[in-house]
Amino acid sequence: VITEPLSWQRTSGGVTAPRGFLAAGVHCGIKQRKRDLALVVSECEATVAGVFTTNRIKAAPVLWCQEVVRRGVARAVVVNSGNANACTGERGLRDAREMAERTAQALGISPHQVLVASTGVIGVPLPMEALRRGIPLAARSLSRSGEEAAEAILTTDAFPKTSAVVTTVGGVQVTVGGMAKGAGMIHPRLATTLCFLTTDASVPAPVLQHALQRAVAESFNRITVDGDTSTNDTVLVLANGRAGAPPVEDERDLERFTEALTVVAQDLARMVVRDGEGAQRLVEVVVEGAADPRDAERAAFAVATSLLVKTMLHGGEPNWGRVVAAVGYSGAEVEERRVAVWFGDVQVVRGGVGVEGVFHQAAQALRQPEVRIRVDLGLGPGRARVWTCDLGEEYVRINGSYIT
Amino acid sequence: VITEPLSWQRTSGGVTAPRGFLAAGVHCGIKQRKRDLALVVSECEATVAGVFTTNRIKAAPVLWCQEVVRRGVARAVVVNSGNANACTGERGLRDAREMAERTAQALGISPHQVLVASTGVIGVPLPMEALRRGIPLAARSLSRSGEEAAEAILTTDAFPKTSAVVTTVGGVQVTVGGMAKGAGMIHPRLATTLCFLTTDASVPAPVLQHALQRAVAESFNRITVDGDTSTNDTVLVLANGRAGAPPVEDERDLERFTEALTVVAQDLARMVVRDGEGAQRLVEVVVEGAADPRDAERAAFAVATSLLVKTMLHGGEPNWGRVVAAVGYSGAEVEERRVAVWFGDVQVVRGGVGVEGVFHQAAQALRQPEVRIRVDLGLGPGRARVWTCDLGEEYVRINGSYIT
Repeated sequence: VITEPLSWQRTSGGVTAPRGFLAAGVHCGIKQRKRDLALVVSECEATVAGVFTTNRIKAAPVLWCQEVVRRGVARAVVVNSGNANACTGERGLRDAREMAERTAQALGISPHQVLVASTGVIGVPLPMEALRRGIPLAARSLSRSGEEAAEAILTTDAFPKTSAVVTTVGGVQVTVGGMAKGAGMIHPRLATTLCFLTTDASVPAPVLQHALQRAVAESFNRITVDGDTSTNDTVLVLANGRAGAPPVEDERDLERFTEALTVVAQDLARMVVRDGEGAQRLVEVVVEGAADPRDAERAAFAVATSLLVKTMLHGGEPNWGRVVAAVGYSGAEVEERRVAVWFGDVQVVRGGVGVEGVFHQAAQALRQPEVRIRVDLGLGPGRARVWTCDLGEEYVRINGSYIT
Repeated sequence: VITEPLSWQRTSGGVTAPRGFLAAGVHCGIKQRKRDLALVVSECEATVAGVFTTNRIKAAPVLWCQEVVRRGVARAVVVNSGNANACTGERGLRDAREMAERTAQALGISPHQVLVASTGVIGVPLPMEALRRGIPLAARSLSRSGEEAAEAILTTDAFPKTSAVVTTVGGVQVTVGGMAKGAGMIHPRLATTLCFLTTDASVPAPVLQHALQRAVAESFNRITVDGDTSTNDTVLVLANGRAGAPPVEDERDLERFTEALTVVAQDLARMVVRDGEGAQRLVEVVVEGAADPRDAERAAFAVATSLLVKTMLHGGEPNWGRVVAAVGYSGAEVEERRVAVWFGDVQVVRGGVGVEGVFHQAAQALRQPEVRIRVDLGLGPGRARVWTCDLGEEYVRINGSYIT
C-alpha cells in the first residue's frame, strides 16, 4: 500500500490530532487505581467503519458496535478496561446498551451513535455502578488531549500507544489519528486488541469501510493469525469532515487517505507487538520467493508464531533450524535445497544447509532491539511480512496470574 | 480402540520385554557425558512399519527409514541423541547411510535392514568419529535390558519413557514393548518425538502398518497438532514372531494386537506430555457435543494449544474465559448459549456464562497433578480427547538457551 512515502507526514497527538475530536480518560473504579474509562467524541456527526473479531464467541460490546457500524454514523466511543463484558449472556447485552445510553445522556446525543468497547477479564459482569459514576465524569473531563484516553484503555500494556499523520485530500490538509491497546500478548492470539482511529477527512461510510479493511490487512492482520482472535477485538474509525476537504472519492485521494490510515494502523500494530508481555525485541519476519503470496503468508506466520523461534529470539541464540522447520510444517511449498535464511544481514542458511563460521555474527544480529528474519524459499514471487516478538519468562509470569 | 480392557495386561520392561530383542545404550561422545547412542536388535528378521513427520523438511535418517519400511523387513534400529542430522544436505544423507552400514557391519547383517533415527540440534553435521567409535561399542553392549537404550535416546527429557503389555494372539501370549523420547516441548510442535515399539507377535508388514497407524492416531496424534511436526518425528514398530503365536490375521486377533499396541503408544505419549519442559501437570482436554468429530478435534486442540490456557494451567487460576474463547476461534461450530465447561468435576460455565461461587473449588481442581478440562458444545455427537500440559517459566528458560 505504501507507494508514495512523501504524500504523508507524522504529526503529534493521537485520536484528538484531527480537528473536531475531544477525548477523556478517567478512573471510575473497575480497576483499583489506574484509569479505566475512556471517551472519544466528535463535535459533529461522523461516518464510521469497523472491523471486528472473527471469534464465534463475541463480547456484548462487539455486537452493539456492529449495529452502529451498519448504520454508518456515530458521535462517540466509550471504552472501559478491566472487564471484557464477554461471556456475560443477556446481562452483558443490557450492560453494553446501558453504557451507550448513559454516554448519550451525558453528551446530549443519540445512544445509537455511541460505540462501546470493553477489555479485560472474561466472564465477570460489568460493575455498572462504577460506570454510572464514571461516564458523566468522563463527559465533564473531555479535552483536546488524547493522552488520558490512551492510558485508560490499557490492560497489561507497559505504555500507551498513539500515532497521527497528516496528508492532503483535494489539496486540503487532513489528519488521521489513533490509539490502541496492546494485546497484552506476544501476538494478539486471544487477548484483546482495541484500536480507535479518527480523521477530519470527509469519507462516505462505504469508502471508509473499504479503506479500513485495507489498512487492517497491512497492520493488525499482520500481527495475528487468522481466526486466533479474542472475543473483543475491535478496530473503529470515525471521519467527521472537519478539515473542510472535499469528500474522499476519486482514486488518487482514496489512495492517499488509505495510505495515511495504514501508516497510523501500522504504527499502532507495531507498538502492540513491541509491548508484548515481557518482550524485549520487535521482530519482523519476511518470507520471499514463495510459490504465491498465500504460501508466503503461511510460512511467515508459522515462523512468527513458533514457540521455539520466539524463545530462541528471547535467548538470542541463532538456532536457525527452528526457522527452517517452521517453514517446513507451515503448509507452504518448500524445497529444502532452495531455502535461504538471514538473521539481520547475516546469511545463516544457503541451499538448505547452514553457513559455517557465522554463529557469533548471527547471535549478534538476534540480540538487537529490532530483529529481522528473512527467508527466501527460492520458488516464486510470493512475499509476506509479519511482526512478532520474543517470548520471555515474564510472559508466563503475567499470564499465569492474570486475575489474582 | 480400547474396547476390551481385560484383553491385555501391563508388564515390566520396554523394547526388550518381547522375546528375541536385545538393546544397548552407550556414550559415544556427541553429548558431553550422557548416553547418546542406542541400539535395538531383533535376533531374527522382523517385519517393520513406520509413521514419520509430515514436515516438508525431513531429516536424513527419516528418508533412510522410509526406504527400509517400504521393503518391510528390518533387524535393528540405531539411534543417536544430541544431533538431529537435519538440514545437513548431501552430507547428512551420507552420514545416515554410514550409521546403517557401520551398525550392519558390527552385527553381521544387511545395512538395508537397519533403521536410523537422530534427535537433537538441527543443522550441524553429525560428529561421525564419535559414531564410528560408538556403534561397535553399542553392539558389544547388547543385553536383555532396555534401560540404557531408553536413556540414550533422550534430549531434554527429565526421565526415560518405557512401557510394555502382554496380550494373546491365537491363544498364545505375545508382548508389545516400547520406548519414547519426550518431545522436550509442551506439545510436540517442533521438537522431535521418537518412539520405538517391538513385539514378538508375528504380523505381516501391511497389517503391522495398519495397526501402527491406528495406534498413533489414538496416542501421538492426540498430543500434537496436525502438521506441527519436527523434521525428525518417527514412530517405528518391529514384529519378530518369536512368541510362536500364529500370524495376526483374523479380525479378533488384529483388534487385540492393535489394542495392545495402542496402550503402549498411549502410555508413552502421555509420558511425553507429562515430561513437557517445565511442566507440572498432565492435562486431558475432552470436547463433547460437537457437531461432528472433526469439530470436536478442532476445539480440543485449540484449547490444548492456547498459550493463555496453558499459562492459566500453570498458575492454577480458573480463568475459564480463555477456554471458551479458544473454542470460539477454533473453527468449530459454536453457539455461545449452549457451551458448558468443567474443570475437573467443577462446572464453571453453564449456558455460555460463568457459574457463580465456584472460584475456589475450580482453582483447587486446576492445581492437581492431573487435570481434566471438559467442554460440552451441546450441538451434536462429536467427541475428541487430547493431552497437553501447562506452560511454565522453565519452558522458556530451557528453550531460550538450547545450544549453549
